[in-house]
Amino acid sequence: MLGILGTPDLGQRSTLGYMGGAKMEDKATRDARRNANIKDTYIHTTAMPWINFSEGIDIKVLRASQETGTWAALFRCAKGSSFARHEHLGAGEYLMLSGKMEVRGGVERGGITAYPGDYGYEPNGVIHDSTCFVEDSEFFFINFGPIKFIDADDNIVMVLDWQTIRDIGAKAQAQQAAAD
Amino acid sequence: MLGILGTPDLGQRSTLGYMGGAKMEDKATRDARRNANIKDTYIHTTAMPWINFSEGIDIKVLRASQETGTWAALFRCAKGSSFARHEHLGAGEYLMLSGKMEVRGGVERGGITAYPGDYGYEPNGVIHDSTCFVEDSEFFFINFGPIKFIDADDNIVMVLDWQTIRDIGAKAQAQQAAAD
Amino acid sequence: MLGILGTPDLGQRSTLGYMGGAKMEDKATRDARRNANIKDTYIHTTAMPWINFSEGIDIKVLRASQETGTWAALFRCAKGSSFARHEHLGAGEYLMLSGKMEVRGGVERGGITAYPGDYGYEPNGVIHDSTCFVEDSEFFFINFGPIKFIDADDNIVMVLDWQTIRDIGAKAQAQQAAAD
Amino acid sequence: MLGILGTPDLGQRSTLGYMGGAKMEDKATRDARRNANIKDTYIHTTAMPWINFSEGIDIKVLRASQETGTWAALFRCAKGSSFARHEHLGAGEYLMLSGKMEVRGGVERGGITAYPGDYGYEPNGVIHDSTCFVEDSEFFFINFGPIKFIDADDNIVMVLDWQTIRDIGAKAQAQQAAAD
Repeated sequence: MLGILGTPDLGQRSTLGYMGGAKMEDKATRDARRNANIKDTYIHTTAMPWINFSEGIDIKVLRASQETGTWAALFRCAKGSSFARHEHLGAGEYLMLSGKMEVRGGVERGGITAYPGDYGYEPNGVIHDSTCFVEDSEFFFINFGPIKFIDADDNIVMVLDWQTIRDIGAKAQAQQAAAD
Repeated sequence: MLGILGTPDLGQRSTLGYMGGAKMEDKATRDARRNANIKDTYIHTTAMPWINFSEGIDIKVLRASQETGTWAALFRCAKGSSFARHEHLGAGEYLMLSGKMEVRGGVERGGITAYPGDYGYEPNGVIHDSTCFVEDSEFFFINFGPIKFIDADDNIVMVLDWQTIRDIGAKAQAQQAAAD
Repeated sequence: MLGILGTPDLGQRSTLGYMGGAKMEDKATRDARRNANIKDTYIHTTAMPWINFSEGIDIKVLRASQETGTWAALFRCAKGSSFARHEHLGAGEYLMLSGKMEVRGGVERGGITAYPGDYGYEPNGVIHDSTCFVEDSEFFFINFGPIKFIDADDNIVMVLDWQTIRDIGAKAQAQQAAAD
Repeated sequence: MLGILGTPDLGQRSTLGYMGGAKMEDKATRDARRNANIKDTYIHTTAMPWINFSEGIDIKVLRASQETGTWAALFRCAKGSSFARHEHLGAGEYLMLSGKMEVRGGVERGGITAYPGDYGYEPNGVIHDSTCFVEDSEFFFINFGPIKFIDADDNIVMVLDWQTIRDIGAKAQAQQAAAD
């Protein structure tokens, strides 16, 4: 009959140096070693140029992950601009920073009207027929996957994914490099 | 020898009503049917009460997902407050809204100093010895999993996960209900 | 000057009943309460019917998540069958259970040939021109998002997502119900 | 009044070379270029050594992702072995390959008994008091985050995460290199 402790053996992990080195290093040295390949990133967004995304809408790309397809961005949308009909192939989250956004027709037509400070979660699979900006607006947005733009008959117009977003980000970097 | 088309059969999906119904419904009816079980959520955050999180730090819980462990929140941190030493067991993303935050000692000690409008990505596994607020600050934060608080010798003090966050959110809802 | 403990207050969480009830319940009662809304699921896959997916390829749907778009399935592929040209809009992982699969032309043409017991990870964004089965094969597959089928000029033929998979799963359940 | 097309501008993406190059390359060249930094991985698992995980339980590490904390492995569990009490801080999925596993006491005590071919999904947050192997067993397992081992009073014994798993995988690679 075997033992049933069932918890991974601490001794084994010490051999791997996972915890064993803790006593021989001070905290700062230990943290620096463990964080060496896990760097936090930081973007001073006000120093980035806006890149045109679609008519009346500009974007600053903050992150585009190859591994997960997740991307983060700031959007600046002129009064009267809108995103065309689309289906989320991955949930999205936003925080309104300024302006006024109407999702699914706005609150007066059964949808949502978002003001500065408002938070929204747009689940995977939701269809947004039109998202309109009735004032100049800015918002922070994270999307966990692609967005499928579709026409009125649900035919696919294009699929926007992390590669499209990454390429827009590269364009901004090239602009900045050329300006320096 | 079998055919090698290899694309899922469109006829089969029509039988399932996945696309077959499109011709018989107008767009609004079709969208309403498809969005019926996939509702976007929306929070007017200025109407929520702040809940105390730790000394000098308050939180508004926006989302806590059982399925993925991801949670989203607004944090309000008084000048002089800080988060204790922790390791991310899931990446975090933030957007600074006001104030000034020093991560890993701030920029003068090799870390990061974040100002309003700044964006950060804190990768899974990173250790933050101390995150300090040198001015009254607010930021939006999404974390893709738990945060493990540890002492100077890396012993676990507590694991903060979606359940902790969900319970704080429930406390806010109870406060609002009692006030009505 | 505020304190800088920075760890969420344990007393507060006790008030929420998160840990406070532990002393008053035995372990089994406590676990049952905490697991009440978090049920593990289990499928005896040999009792499920195979559903046709494409020519020569059958599927058993094990899971399709609305929240994340992740889906899990067993595939049974007849000798000579293949998946058409596609791009992964989400990583995939597989474990070969029987047979022989050639990815990107197989090992003799610079690709991969998978045998029983082999594991593969297909990253988000990878393009697979053709995946062929040179023997009757079965494999277990998890995909973290949609798959975009494309033609030789990269035009989109269809996007296979969790909703397509869920509908195939519903078809299997209807078949089983009708048979009972 | 601005236009309201709202779909990302195709011309812009052509400038980025995202689609514009398609006409000038043949399909194989194009795929090779686009897959260059997105390589699928493949493991012939029968050639890997088993590494001891805990008493009576061995593991082959297939993947451990720093970015998401997800890891994949094969487990080989001797008759009478078990995993100690734990809480999932990330969902897990398994496919039984051989043997017999009893989760939460097995089916006779309200839990689950898994046989070869069976699939299970263990949601984030679920507590498993004991998972026992009543026969020599093997299963394939993917976990989307850490596992928190706890004692009978719910005190944390250890947190098993992608770093622990990665270190075990490195140990296997070192063993193989030494044997060559």
